[in-house]
Amino acid sequence: MPHIQLPENAPGILGPMKFSPQTAAPMNTLANALLQTDDGLSRGERELIATYVSSQNDCIFCQTIHGAVASEYLGDDDWSFVKAVKCDYQQTSLSDKMKALLAIAGSVQKGGKNVTAEQVETARQHGATDKDIHDTVLIAAAFCMFNRYVDGLATVAPINPDVYRGRAANVVKNGYSAEGQYAPAPIIS
Amino acid sequence: MPHIQLPENAPGILGPMKFSPQTAAPMNTLANALLQTDDGLSRGERELIATYVSSQNDCIFCQTIHGAVASEYLGDDDWSFVKAVKCDYQQTSLSDKMKALLAIAGSVQKGGKNVTAEQVETARQHGATDKDIHDTVLIAAAFCMFNRYVDGLATVAPINPDVYRGRAANVVKNGYSAEGQYAPAPIIS
Repeated sequence: MPHIQLPENAPGILGPMKFSPQTAAPMNTLANALLQTDDGLSRGERELIATYVSSQNDCIFCQTIHGAVASEYLGDDDWSFVKAVKCDYQQTSLSDKMKALLAIAGSVQKGGKNVTAEQVETARQHGATDKDIHDTVLIAAAFCMFNRYVDGLATVAPINPDVYRGRAANVVKNGYSAEGQYAPAPIIS
Repeated sequence: MPHIQLPENAPGILGPMKFSPQTAAPMNTLANALLQTDDGLSRGERELIATYVSSQNDCIFCQTIHGAVASEYLGDDDWSFVKAVKCDYQQTSLSDKMKALLAIAGSVQKGGKNVTAEQVETARQHGATDKDIHDTVLIAAAFCMFNRYVDGLATVAPINPDVYRGRAANVVKNGYSAEGQYAPAPIIS
């Protein structure tokens, strides 16, 4: 049960965002600026970083919805690739550049000072630009916020994967918003 | 030395914010929505939560600038009260409500799932509303982002307290912005 009274039919981050629209607006603007662009890193790569950090933070809602969005972009219909990235990205077919950036993201998740000059140099050697490194650090940092917002208020995460698939398709089409983008649970009549 | 090439004369978070204005804008809007209001928690109390979380995250820049802003609001001219809050807030003259909210903020800093129903109940018993609890969780979560952004890119923190005092006076007057609100270092002619 959430720690505060939240609107009904608003799972995960949508509950707190509907509770506090004045903070939800800039949070969604930030999410769109970080995730809804292919400038440098692709949208799929950005969502993978968000998913990986959310997984490291053990945030079920965020890792599932952003994993679903990543899967939409990457054609990972059965979510097996995203699951492999969360489990052990070094063993996946990801590029060396993405593996180096995920290492940086993992350090940010533990705390900003864990990022080392060696990690940054490795990412550069594999083609990462200053913007790629900046965006990786800020995506990882931002999900340390989003994850704590979701779990710090003990919000409820849907267990039906189709809820996340529906939301992911909507995010791909319309971007992030606090408005009602979750289909209601199917009514059995 | 920062991990990426950042604009000069832009210490702490201002460097990355000038590097990436499209993400700086919503981050400053969020900071203003969370910190520049007395709706429920006062501005001074909000800045204390930000300072405490930044201290727990060992982020020198953020704990110093937000501590300076808190001191401005609280009339803590020599910063001794803010230092005591960072060191051991239980031993300070803070209200029981604020102590209970700082306990929640400290749990969020460690990870959202560390917040307990007992902590929330204690805060309620001391007068905290749903909005106070929401705002505490989101301030703490947001500073887990800001701190990681500042330290994950290895930005430079000024060591002169007067730099922070000048910035704090400006924040109190004008709110948060990525624009140049730091006075340049005094020129010895």
